[in-house]
Amino acid sequence: MSTRPKARAVSLTVRELAERLGLSFEGDGAVVVSGVAGLDRAGRGDRSFLAHPRFRPHLEKTGASALILAPGVAWDRTPVLRAENPHPAFVRATELFFKPFRPDPGIHPTALVSASAKIGRDASIGALCWIGDGAEIGAGSILHPLVAVYPGVRIGRNAVIHSQVTIREDVSIGDNVILHAGVVIGSDGFGYIKGPDGRHIKIPQIGSVRIEDDVEIGANSTVDRAALGETVIGKGSKIDNLVMIAHNVEIGTNTILIAQTGIAGSTKVGNNVITGGQAGLADHVTVGDNVFIAAQAGVAKDIPAGSMVGGSPHLDIKDWLKLSALLPQLPELVKDLKRLKTKLEELDKK
Amino acid sequence: MSTRPKARAVSLTVRELAERLGLSFEGDGAVVVSGVAGLDRAGRGDRSFLAHPRFRPHLEKTGASALILAPGVAWDRTPVLRAENPHPAFVRATELFFKPFRPDPGIHPTALVSASAKIGRDASIGALCWIGDGAEIGAGSILHPLVAVYPGVRIGRNAVIHSQVTIREDVSIGDNVILHAGVVIGSDGFGYIKGPDGRHIKIPQIGSVRIEDDVEIGANSTVDRAALGETVIGKGSKIDNLVMIAHNVEIGTNTILIAQTGIAGSTKVGNNVITGGQAGLADHVTVGDNVFIAAQAGVAKDIPAGSMVGGSPHLDIKDWLKLSALLPQLPELVKDLKRLKTKLEELDKK
Amino acid sequence: MSTRPKARAVSLTVRELAERLGLSFEGDGAVVVSGVAGLDRAGRGDRSFLAHPRFRPHLEKTGASALILAPGVAWDRTPVLRAENPHPAFVRATELFFKPFRPDPGIHPTALVSASAKIGRDASIGALCWIGDGAEIGAGSILHPLVAVYPGVRIGRNAVIHSQVTIREDVSIGDNVILHAGVVIGSDGFGYIKGPDGRHIKIPQIGSVRIEDDVEIGANSTVDRAALGETVIGKGSKIDNLVMIAHNVEIGTNTILIAQTGIAGSTKVGNNVITGGQAGLADHVTVGDNVFIAAQAGVAKDIPAGSMVGGSPHLDIKDWLKLSALLPQLPELVKDLKRLKTKLEELDKK
Repeated sequence: MSTRPKARAVSLTVRELAERLGLSFEGDGAVVVSGVAGLDRAGRGDRSFLAHPRFRPHLEKTGASALILAPGVAWDRTPVLRAENPHPAFVRATELFFKPFRPDPGIHPTALVSASAKIGRDASIGALCWIGDGAEIGAGSILHPLVAVYPGVRIGRNAVIHSQVTIREDVSIGDNVILHAGVVIGSDGFGYIKGPDGRHIKIPQIGSVRIEDDVEIGANSTVDRAALGETVIGKGSKIDNLVMIAHNVEIGTNTILIAQTGIAGSTKVGNNVITGGQAGLADHVTVGDNVFIAAQAGVAKDIPAGSMVGGSPHLDIKDWLKLSALLPQLPELVKDLKRLKTKLEELDKK
Repeated sequence: MSTRPKARAVSLTVRELAERLGLSFEGDGAVVVSGVAGLDRAGRGDRSFLAHPRFRPHLEKTGASALILAPGVAWDRTPVLRAENPHPAFVRATELFFKPFRPDPGIHPTALVSASAKIGRDASIGALCWIGDGAEIGAGSILHPLVAVYPGVRIGRNAVIHSQVTIREDVSIGDNVILHAGVVIGSDGFGYIKGPDGRHIKIPQIGSVRIEDDVEIGANSTVDRAALGETVIGKGSKIDNLVMIAHNVEIGTNTILIAQTGIAGSTKVGNNVITGGQAGLADHVTVGDNVFIAAQAGVAKDIPAGSMVGGSPHLDIKDWLKLSALLPQLPELVKDLKRLKTKLEELDKK
Repeated sequence: MSTRPKARAVSLTVRELAERLGLSFEGDGAVVVSGVAGLDRAGRGDRSFLAHPRFRPHLEKTGASALILAPGVAWDRTPVLRAENPHPAFVRATELFFKPFRPDPGIHPTALVSASAKIGRDASIGALCWIGDGAEIGAGSILHPLVAVYPGVRIGRNAVIHSQVTIREDVSIGDNVILHAGVVIGSDGFGYIKGPDGRHIKIPQIGSVRIEDDVEIGANSTVDRAALGETVIGKGSKIDNLVMIAHNVEIGTNTILIAQTGIAGSTKVGNNVITGGQAGLADHVTVGDNVFIAAQAGVAKDIPAGSMVGGSPHLDIKDWLKLSALLPQLPELVKDLKRLKTKLEELDKK
């Protein structure tokens, strides 16, 4: 059994919880809550959980010992914490019950840190990490075990870098950035020129990557360094697992790229964009702000700000939904056409 | 040259082979066999191989020194081992000639194992592995070098974990599980709520992952931990390379997910399902048992048990095949339609 | 700040640069150049860069201190180096200004190298690498930190293997091969036979992988070992990030596979083939030489040499482009068809 505090090891009364979250409560303040769960889960018998009523139908059958509800919702079967916005309140409650693992502050004795690297105050450098010459790790940042940091990398404050991550030379990473396990930042862009003999001659990829503050990048995603200049992931953007960002791509702020999205070289994606899973963007495309790109879409042309698109090659999403609904009728349409043809020929003979 | 026994270093006579496999044989029992090969390969001149006649056309031109054949198949050019089911017999023969590498049992002196971790009997913990507090590794399990096991992880018996794998905190992994190199289990699910200022606020992903017995997961695939509760990969399911399993997904037993499949959050996939390569399943979808989903399909709606589907958005596979066959005729259909229109107008004038 | 020489730390005069590149120059040979940039970048004020006029419109507004231009192009605003082929000259210039990081030659004291492994002259084995029994690393090759090399692996001369790479047992890798971070070579192929009880019985994957000379493989891509025989990546082929190569695939020479391409088992791809991003090739398909496969295409049938294809399932690219252009008109066509029907019925009544 683990000796580490687990998610459910913390217990608080409803009164304590209300105080810590700055919320009012109704009902018995002495009821003990020892974790959090979605209503559907808590409904399955785990009676000591604080539940978040995301799915209203589950409300009646919940087994939770307490709920977080908006002011208007009537409820007296358990104690209730009242929050104008139950979802963010639930998120904050979650944090009270769950302390994610972090290595102790300081440099683990088995980590290899270059004498010319600078490690900020209270940073944690996990076991068996390697940090190259001149790298800088900001205050409070965490490197989990087995991370590779090439020379000249700069990482800001309070970043979290999980195991098996590689950060190549001279990459710049902002504050509060989270890189999940297996992420690769700064690998060479994919660029060649064709020699006279058909061989591909590698174009040195001498640019870098800049990951701005508050970015999160999912497991095993890759961000290539620029051929020249920088590949940029803008502040607050969130990237899911197994996403590919090619060289010289520029992603704006607060943009979301769902899993297995691929973005080819030099493409520019605006702010607050969302791409669905497995979407693909060709090279040298410009996507405006607030664009939504549906899952599996294929984008080879510029998309103006505010558009919603789907399909491959992409269409306006309304046209694509209409087309998708019509396509299964194509066999029937073909029959219709043949019938018409026959009829017309008959008519013509008359 | 390697000092390790290679695949072809073992030699057995046909007689020895028959004994070990519990099969009868015909022909010269003294013929030496020193490896296994498909008939097509063995046909290319490597005469000392035991061949599996998967492809009948190759039978005549095989260069193999012996064959495994079903009872009815006539053959006298080489010795023959007779098996009711040649394929499983061939698989067992393969195992006689090939001992995959495993580190010696015990904990390598360079591995970092927490004092509170428990390592089962005859387990092998490879060089430069890191195992966190309270983790448990079952008897006979193998961790190849450079594996990261976060605190609170439980791994069953006889599991094989390859290099560069990361297993995040509190993940549970069953017996006989194989995780190939670069796999990430238990990375944070991709969940945010939008703040009033447009920023994405991370929802703590405090659930876990349960990988049941006999599961195999391919290189660089990722399985995210649940937001709340568990992401589950059911007993005996097999997952190929570069597959993405999002938070709170539940996969049944004996299901097969081919390479680069992506399954979004909270989707439930039944037992004995097969997804083709690059298939994508949207979030909150339910896929019944025994469903077949073709390569590159896009699934955004529930699929009842026993269905076969293809296309994006998905259709019944018969409809999709019909549609795929018709689509290339669309330009011709458009011309037909125009001709009809003209003809009708002419007729109308008359 | 980094103590390592950065890209821009080298400065050369135009005269020195011309000498080293074997080019003539016009203008002031004393002008100092301290880096390279594309014209668009250099145009943003970084005045000390040598620019490559890839994008002619940028020529007028460049801020570069010197240019590489073909003989015919008139220019007197800055010194000019003249090259018959400016692009390759630019590539060679790039190499003068950028020395990528490499660990010092020799075996880092924290690397674990088997006593039976052979390390070539001037090879660099980085910190915390693990190299198994009987492995061979050729002269001048570089293993960056945290690489796992299983027993029996052979790596040629002047290869570069980045951090977090795993090379499984008995894999063979040629000269000048580059494997980017997180690559997995030689993971088990995905092969099972179905047992009578519905369980999937693993077919031992006892073949290997052969990566020929001059191959480059992008971050987090995976190449599975053959069930029997070899998976082959031919000389000079270049593979982008997150690409999946299944067991027994054979790729020819100088072929290019763009990011997230997936190639299923036993498929054969010729020489000088290009696949676009997220293309998928089914198993047991043969693709001839000089084939172009568009992004997101789905290939389930053989493709003859010299073809260009797109779509899923794939069509000749001209047919696919025609179809893609027509599809959005389908709703209008359906309306047309209905109008015709009505008109014909009216006519029929008359």
